[in-house]
Amino acid sequence: MEIRRYKHDAAYSYTLGMALTIELIAQKDSYHIRKIYVHPDYVPKDDKNNIFEICNEAQLPVEINKKVFGRLSMKENVYVIGIFDKHDMNVEPGRPHVVLVNPSDSGNLGTILRTGLGFGFKDYVIIKPGVDIYNPKTIRSSMGAFFHVRFTYYDSFEQYRQKFSNHQMYLFMLDGKINLKDMKERQQKNPFSLVFGNEGSGLPGFFRDYGDSIYIEHNNEIDSLNLSVAFGIAANSFSE
Amino acid sequence: MEIRRYKHDAAYSYTLGMALTIELIAQKDSYHIRKIYVHPDYVPKDDKNNIFEICNEAQLPVEINKKVFGRLSMKENVYVIGIFDKHDMNVEPGRPHVVLVNPSDSGNLGTILRTGLGFGFKDYVIIKPGVDIYNPKTIRSSMGAFFHVRFTYYDSFEQYRQKFSNHQMYLFMLDGKINLKDMKERQQKNPFSLVFGNEGSGLPGFFRDYGDSIYIEHNNEIDSLNLSVAFGIAANSFSE
Repeated sequence: MEIRRYKHDAAYSYTLGMALTIELIAQKDSYHIRKIYVHPDYVPKDDKNNIFEICNEAQLPVEINKKVFGRLSMKENVYVIGIFDKHDMNVEPGRPHVVLVNPSDSGNLGTILRTGLGFGFKDYVIIKPGVDIYNPKTIRSSMGAFFHVRFTYYDSFEQYRQKFSNHQMYLFMLDGKINLKDMKERQQKNPFSLVFGNEGSGLPGFFRDYGDSIYIEHNNEIDSLNLSVAFGIAANSFSE
Repeated sequence: MEIRRYKHDAAYSYTLGMALTIELIAQKDSYHIRKIYVHPDYVPKDDKNNIFEICNEAQLPVEINKKVFGRLSMKENVYVIGIFDKHDMNVEPGRPHVVLVNPSDSGNLGTILRTGLGFGFKDYVIIKPGVDIYNPKTIRSSMGAFFHVRFTYYDSFEQYRQKFSNHQMYLFMLDGKINLKDMKERQQKNPFSLVFGNEGSGLPGFFRDYGDSIYIEHNNEIDSLNLSVAFGIAANSFSE
């Protein structure tokens, strides 16, 4: 079967670049890897980082193929690509969740996974419609964090909330009631979910009724913070 | 003179899109505006937001021109472009500074300006080599914050430090000595500069001798935080 540039309905996705592909191979018990493609111009950095050796050890099929790189990669410095099967998974109950309502930017999503993983968040929920977490752009901007987190899509927030009705919902809104700074003095309830809206429009007003609404204090010289920055500040604060 | 796609050595830069161009026009006392270009398919949202009215009121030359959009804009939804002259400026002494040593990502830089402005940081220093702050991509990702901040380039950090020797330098490093969380209990010295390294390589080790080195605590499942996220966490903390 010919590997084409990623589309949402594809059964597979892929890693672009050596570092990401090594992250993928390390997770070969969780992800079924179809094949590793190597560019004919590939030169191993050193003996330890030879992709052929790594694939041999992991018993993975390798193919030297130039055409695939022209089709899948827009960046020039990609010499290794790993193709793997997508699969559904479930976020873990009782653990802190990050809930993204209708996220629209693949790069932001990857940055959120990277930041969140660094602060101990491993479970991500995306409320549809939202960007495809399997998009190679998200995997790339996650810097490999993608392979260390769990994620589930829900059709609606209502559906998610019913399933995790024991979770305290913390809703990040420009006009939230609680200043994030004051959360430290309050009793943080467990398990909890940090809920963020779309990059442009934020959470609709009625979300405040779902739990505690929180705002990150900033002056009015800007309309709002960038979503991944706001998430970083929140995740840092909740990891304390 | 024909307006070409932005290059570093151009004497002008430009805003892509209506919202940014309105920000530019509001700063017409600070920036010399050459011309506003309007796409022939432009339709005003409402009477208040009519670019022709706004330019008439601000006494700015307007030109309907389709070709310019093909040359300057890669996004489809851009119908208004503002061309303005670049000029040098100076950061203000005595105010908190943000110092970026060799930043390499235009989008990150714009996000940093947006975040910093929201937390009250108006003065930005870039140590060369570093991305061009006048790049339209930076202006765009700043969401207009660009027009509300001051910035200066320095050839070396040493040169900057000599000029602002009264500034307490806070150096953000993965192996910094002080946990950012503990900064709240310490006496924050004024005036100060928050100093960040390159996206990929961070600050060189010898920077720790320039002042207080600070780290943002995260687990070792990630190598580092994204620069604009790290800056957001730091700026939020220092604005408290």
